[in-house]
Amino acid sequence: MPYKHIIDNCFVNRIGAGGVSADCFRRFLAKGSAALSEITGSADQETQAILRIPEQHKDLETIQPVADQLRECCKDLLVVGTGGSSLGARTLCALSQTATPRLWFLENIDPDGVDPIFDNLDPKRTGAVFISKSGSTTETVGLTMIVLEWLLENTSSNAPSERCVAITERGDNPLHDLARGYKFSVLEHDPFIGGRFSVFSSVGLLPAAVAGLDIAAIRQGARELAETCLKDPASAAPVAGASLAAAFADELDISISVLMPYRDRLAGLALWYRQLWAESLGKEGRGTTPVQATGTVDQHSQLQLYLDGPADKWISLVTCPAANTGRTIPADLASEAGQGHLAGKALGDLLDAFSSATAEALAQHGRPVRELRLDALDERSLGALMMHFVLETLITARLWNVNPFGQPAVETGKTLAMSRLAGPKGRLA
Amino acid sequence: MPYKHIIDNCFVNRIGAGGVSADCFRRFLAKGSAALSEITGSADQETQAILRIPEQHKDLETIQPVADQLRECCKDLLVVGTGGSSLGARTLCALSQTATPRLWFLENIDPDGVDPIFDNLDPKRTGAVFISKSGSTTETVGLTMIVLEWLLENTSSNAPSERCVAITERGDNPLHDLARGYKFSVLEHDPFIGGRFSVFSSVGLLPAAVAGLDIAAIRQGARELAETCLKDPASAAPVAGASLAAAFADELDISISVLMPYRDRLAGLALWYRQLWAESLGKEGRGTTPVQATGTVDQHSQLQLYLDGPADKWISLVTCPAANTGRTIPADLASEAGQGHLAGKALGDLLDAFSSATAEALAQHGRPVRELRLDALDERSLGALMMHFVLETLITARLWNVNPFGQPAVETGKTLAMSRLAGPKGRLA
Repeated sequence: MPYKHIIDNCFVNRIGAGGVSADCFRRFLAKGSAALSEITGSADQETQAILRIPEQHKDLETIQPVADQLRECCKDLLVVGTGGSSLGARTLCALSQTATPRLWFLENIDPDGVDPIFDNLDPKRTGAVFISKSGSTTETVGLTMIVLEWLLENTSSNAPSERCVAITERGDNPLHDLARGYKFSVLEHDPFIGGRFSVFSSVGLLPAAVAGLDIAAIRQGARELAETCLKDPASAAPVAGASLAAAFADELDISISVLMPYRDRLAGLALWYRQLWAESLGKEGRGTTPVQATGTVDQHSQLQLYLDGPADKWISLVTCPAANTGRTIPADLASEAGQGHLAGKALGDLLDAFSSATAEALAQHGRPVRELRLDALDERSLGALMMHFVLETLITARLWNVNPFGQPAVETGKTLAMSRLAGPKGRLA
Repeated sequence: MPYKHIIDNCFVNRIGAGGVSADCFRRFLAKGSAALSEITGSADQETQAILRIPEQHKDLETIQPVADQLRECCKDLLVVGTGGSSLGARTLCALSQTATPRLWFLENIDPDGVDPIFDNLDPKRTGAVFISKSGSTTETVGLTMIVLEWLLENTSSNAPSERCVAITERGDNPLHDLARGYKFSVLEHDPFIGGRFSVFSSVGLLPAAVAGLDIAAIRQGARELAETCLKDPASAAPVAGASLAAAFADELDISISVLMPYRDRLAGLALWYRQLWAESLGKEGRGTTPVQATGTVDQHSQLQLYLDGPADKWISLVTCPAANTGRTIPADLASEAGQGHLAGKALGDLLDAFSSATAEALAQHGRPVRELRLDALDERSLGALMMHFVLETLITARLWNVNPFGQPAVETGKTLAMSRLAGPKGRLA
C-alpha cells in the first residue's frame, strides 16, 4: 500500500488510560471486520456504487477528452459547486503543479468573494464546470446563471456550448434545463453516489484531469486499497481505523476526531474528510465531530488544547516525508542568530522533525494519536488515502447502526431559506 | 456598538432543553460581571496591557510611518510569523481591498508552500515583516534566514535595512541578532501581550496599515467595546457571552464552540478565534473545543452534524447584512431554469436568507445559537468584534479559574523537535 497506518500510540500499553486496551481493540476489530463483510456483501445500490467505482475504466474515456478540450481552450476554469461537489476535486487538484488552466472554485455566494474573480478573468478564455447532483442546489444554480450571463454578455453566444460542462443527475432539474437551453454538455452524475462519496467519479476526476493529473492513477490507488480490504479485513487499515474510532467513542467518550495533515497540499484533505465524517455519521444524536488542522501552523494554535485540555480527542496526523527538500537554512545566518543547530537544515527537515515530535508529545501526554504516512504526494497515494477514509466512514456507520447516506436534517434550513427568498422583497432588506 | 449580540436562541423558553434557563443565566451572569470587575481591577500586568492597548495613540505615530515606507517601496510584502504572530493580522488584512503591496503570509514551513512564493516575487520590490514575540520561534527564525538570504543574493546588500522590519521583544534573541547583523529596524513587541492577544498592537496593526487600513479606527472600535463593558458589566455583550459559554459547558456538557461567519472576508476571524479560545482555556483538562466554519459553504458540510448529531455544540454565527449587494440572478435564465423565485435576487440576498434560515433551523432543532451581527464590514466593527472575543475569553478563564496566558503544554513537543534537529543528520533521512 502507498501509505502506512501507524496506530501504536492509540493503546493503553503506550499512552496509558487514554488509550484502548488490547482486549477492547480485539472486540471492536471483530465487529469492524464483520461490518466490512456486510458492506461488501450488501445489495444496497449506494454502497455497491461507491465500492465499484474505482474499478471502472470506461468512463475515463469520456472524462479525459472533455478535460483535454477544456485544457486546450481555457486559460481559466470556474468549478461551480459546493460541499461534496467541490471538496473532493479541490483536494485532488491541490496536488497539481500545472499552471494552466488556473482553476477557481466558486463555492460560496458572498459578493465580496465572487465579484473579484470575474474582474480577473478573460471571458473569451474562461470555461466552467457546474456540479450539483440534484441539479437544484440554490447556491450552485444561482452562480451558474451568473456565470452564464457573464459569458453571454462578454463573448459569443456559443461560449456556453464550447466551454461549459455540467455534472448532474439524469432527468429534469434546473441545471439540466440550463444545459439544454444554452447547449452545453452534461456528464451524468451517478444517481447512487452522493456528493461526499463522489471524488472518484467525474465530480472529482474531471477537474483533476483539467488540472493535469493522472486520473487513472487516482482510481488505481483507490482500487488497490479496496482490494486489500477485501482480501484480509482483519488487518486492513480502514477496518482498524473504524474499530478504533468506535472504541474511542463508545468506551472512552472521545467525541472529537482531529485530522491534521503536515503538508500544505493536504490542507484541503482535512476539509473533505470533515464533510465525509460529519454528514455521514452526524445523525440521530450519534456521530463524533471532525476537526481540521494543519501542521505545523496549528501547533501554534490548537496543540495546547490537544495536549492539556479535555481528553476528548483522537488525533490523526497525515504525513509524507519531506526531509532534504525545500530551501536550506544558510549556515552563516544560522550562526549569527545563535541557531547553529539549524545550519544547513532544509525546510522539509524541520517539517519532519515537528510532525514526529508532535506525535510523541501527544503520546507522552496520554492523548491517542495515529499517523497515516504517505510514501509520496502523488495521485496513487492520495487515491488510496481517500478510499481509506471512505471505507473507514462506511464501516463506522455500520458499527453505529447509522445510515451513512443522505443529510436529512438540513432540509429544514433549505425550506426556511426558500420561504424567505420567495417572500416579498421588503423582507430581505 | 457597531454590532448586535443576539442571544434569544440560547434559552430554554425558545429552544427547549438544549437551552439555558433564565435562572441559570442570571446566576452565571452575576459571576461573569464579578469576573469582569476582578479583571479590570487586577494588577496583573498582562491583563492590564491587553485592556489598555486600545486606548493608546502614541505608538500609532511610529507604526504608520513604517507602514507608509513599506507601502512606498514594496510591490509585495512577506509577513513572516505563525500562530498569534499572523492570525490577527490576517483577519484584519482580509478587510482591505487595496491591490498593492500584496501581502503574503509565510506561516508554514512546507517547501511546497514556501518555494512557489519566491518564484513569483521580484526581490527588488519585496519587503518583509518578521514577527515573533520571543524572537526564537523555530519556523519563523528559519524562514527569516531564508528570506534574508534570498534578498541578499538577488539584490543589494542594503535590501534588508531598507525593506525589512522585525517585531520582537527587547533583549537578546535570534530575531534581534539578525536585525542587528543586517541593520533592519525593530518594533518592540510588548512583553506583556502574548501573540494571541496582540492583534491591537503593532503585530496586527503594522500589516493592517500596509494593507491600507485605518488602524486608528480598529483601535477605536476595540476601545468603545471595552468602555461599554466597564460602564455596565451586567449588560455588556462579552459578559453575557462568557456567562453563556460557562453555563453551557458547566450545566449542559456542551464541549464545542462553533464560530461560523457568513462572509468570506471573515473566514480568517474564525481561525483567529480558534487560537484565542483554544490556547487560553485548554489547560489542566479544562476548556471547550473551538471549531471554525464558514457560511454558506459549511452548511453543505457540517450542518447535518450540528442539527442532528450529539447536542454538544454552541454555535455562534457572525453576520453582516449583504442584501442588495453583488451580482444579480438574471430573470430570463431564472425562468428558463424554473427558478422564478431567484429572479432578480442579488447574491447578498441569498446569503442573508441562508444565514437567518440556518439560525432558525438550529433553534428549531433545539441547538443553542447566537448571532453577532455587524453593522458594517469595516475597521471599527472588526476592532469591536475582536475585542469582544478577547474579553469573552478572559472572563471565561476567570470563571473557570484557568490562567489564560502562556501555552505551557507545548514545550514538550518543541524540546523533542529540537533534539531531533540537533541529532545526527542521518536520523532525519
